[in-house]
Amino acid sequence: MIQVKAFAAYDAETPLKPFEFERKEVGPNQVQIEILYSGVCHSDIHTAKGDWGPAIYPLVPGHEIVGRIIKTGEKVTKFSVGELAGVGCFVDSCRTCASCKEGEEQYCEEGMTGTYNSYERGTKTPTYGGYATAITVDESYVLHVSEKLDLKGVAPLLCAGITTYSPLRYLKVGKGDKVAVLGLGGLGHMAVKFAASFGAEVTMLSTSPSKEADAKDLGAHHFALTSDPAVMASLTNKFDVIINTVSAKHDYNTYLNLLNKNGTMVIVGLPPAGEPIQAFNLVMKRRAIMGSLIGGIKETQEMLDYCAEHNITSDVEIIDMDYINEAYERMDRSDVKYRFVIDMASMK
Amino acid sequence: MIQVKAFAAYDAETPLKPFEFERKEVGPNQVQIEILYSGVCHSDIHTAKGDWGPAIYPLVPGHEIVGRIIKTGEKVTKFSVGELAGVGCFVDSCRTCASCKEGEEQYCEEGMTGTYNSYERGTKTPTYGGYATAITVDESYVLHVSEKLDLKGVAPLLCAGITTYSPLRYLKVGKGDKVAVLGLGGLGHMAVKFAASFGAEVTMLSTSPSKEADAKDLGAHHFALTSDPAVMASLTNKFDVIINTVSAKHDYNTYLNLLNKNGTMVIVGLPPAGEPIQAFNLVMKRRAIMGSLIGGIKETQEMLDYCAEHNITSDVEIIDMDYINEAYERMDRSDVKYRFVIDMASMK
Repeated sequence: MIQVKAFAAYDAETPLKPFEFERKEVGPNQVQIEILYSGVCHSDIHTAKGDWGPAIYPLVPGHEIVGRIIKTGEKVTKFSVGELAGVGCFVDSCRTCASCKEGEEQYCEEGMTGTYNSYERGTKTPTYGGYATAITVDESYVLHVSEKLDLKGVAPLLCAGITTYSPLRYLKVGKGDKVAVLGLGGLGHMAVKFAASFGAEVTMLSTSPSKEADAKDLGAHHFALTSDPAVMASLTNKFDVIINTVSAKHDYNTYLNLLNKNGTMVIVGLPPAGEPIQAFNLVMKRRAIMGSLIGGIKETQEMLDYCAEHNITSDVEIIDMDYINEAYERMDRSDVKYRFVIDMASMK
Repeated sequence: MIQVKAFAAYDAETPLKPFEFERKEVGPNQVQIEILYSGVCHSDIHTAKGDWGPAIYPLVPGHEIVGRIIKTGEKVTKFSVGELAGVGCFVDSCRTCASCKEGEEQYCEEGMTGTYNSYERGTKTPTYGGYATAITVDESYVLHVSEKLDLKGVAPLLCAGITTYSPLRYLKVGKGDKVAVLGLGGLGHMAVKFAASFGAEVTMLSTSPSKEADAKDLGAHHFALTSDPAVMASLTNKFDVIINTVSAKHDYNTYLNLLNKNGTMVIVGLPPAGEPIQAFNLVMKRRAIMGSLIGGIKETQEMLDYCAEHNITSDVEIIDMDYINEAYERMDRSDVKYRFVIDMASMK
């Protein structure tokens, strides 16, 4: 057993507080990782506050984890002590269903085992996430991380990165495609970077004129103010793909109408209630709305390798662990460019 | 000019009544068709009643037209007098936009010219549809019809047929695919026939147990009663494609959950208001909702040729022209298997 220092939500209402627990010794196929940086995702807040149903408390959030291997099980072949490693949104899955066999464990038919707020498979031991000094994970669910990149900006790739990379790849976005990104936050800023890197012509759609310069710095070719009816009218039928990262209530139809024939709006945000869709808006241009959920281990590795090759990281603001509750409040106001990342050295 | 006898709606409220008008002489690129059979589509009713906005009255509905060429313009090369021919939902388009050039005139960027309730391009001459003894159309918008098939059952292929054929082809449905069809009417019965003919395993989804035998006669391999929660639970994640033909209000989410990973629900019906979609239901299995609108001339010809080769026609009930108002009432009660087709000999 190893003793781990962490921060946890003890219930849905009160701020996160220090929490200590033990991680099991590494099993034969497991690696133990000293966590160096842990990204802070909106899902962490939603889960901690019970927005998506009752959580398993104490809850240690965090599923954007990078660190260094400190121990390997006897059967481990992929990793050596001292190497960098990453852990994303899940740490296990059934390994036998069609999705798992296809390397798309995120769609596991039995349900993936979340990095936090799940139980280790076949047990009643809760999984604890990345707001902690160490984590122990089966090597099959651990990613290689390049020494080439600034590690601080790598952590958010494990969720915000793969969530936007995966649908762009699934839809084969590349040169000649017109892509719009709706919402400039943790997901949106990665969507802009990836789409531009893949060769697409990228437009940032935003309600806030103040975001224009930032969007262009990230690689967007155009900026469109969604509150301006003339701008929106001029964009009717213009895009092949829209990456919709917005989790607040908003009208899908407004954006559907910006899709060209055969265009797809990809939903990666989860608005709290059902958003009405006018069938007419789909039918008249053979438009589609598609959901997409993070990515499998294989594709996440491909994404990390792509980022290392093309020098892509997330734009982050580094914080100490005890700043987490203030960070949550600022995230609720969208006051971060574009991801908070906890420096785990602050736990020592 | 040739004198045409027809039936028309004179306003949104009163029954259809006889109407006489003149069709222009055939232009150099036009053919004149003696209409033999005209299918009766739900769109005819919606348009006549002004459900989709004010109509151009007097309105002669009908966009499922088959007949025989009686005259050809001097530059016509595709058709000869005496041949069978068909006309579907549109009779013209801009011919220059990307969609038209791709042979997908139904998505014409300027808007296709409807077979009825439109104006001939660049004029204020209304287009009049198939509830008439003859029609004059540019040969580029006219289909070849095989002598092999029973002509009565061919008329509905021009709308109900192509509307279901096109998305099944677009999604490359074939052997090994599991397809569900929601709604057993004019569109639904054709969707079952095509999906089964393409080699898919077809399930009819219906609220009415009385439709089981009929669905299986049409080629469905399975029947599922959507009002039975146990049946619906057993079908979760089961289908690759759902062809949703329902135009009444219904909950999209119920059916989305029957889609497997990467599955697509195709919307070909137009519910009167927006139907809420839970983003979660899309995201968790990378499911999609897609709209689809009839098909282009090229694909409609391909569909008609496929039907001739595989002996596929619509199941129809033949009526006289003066039965049209009773037919409309029966269609509102879904009391037809599965399409009314007007025998134009009844106009003589």
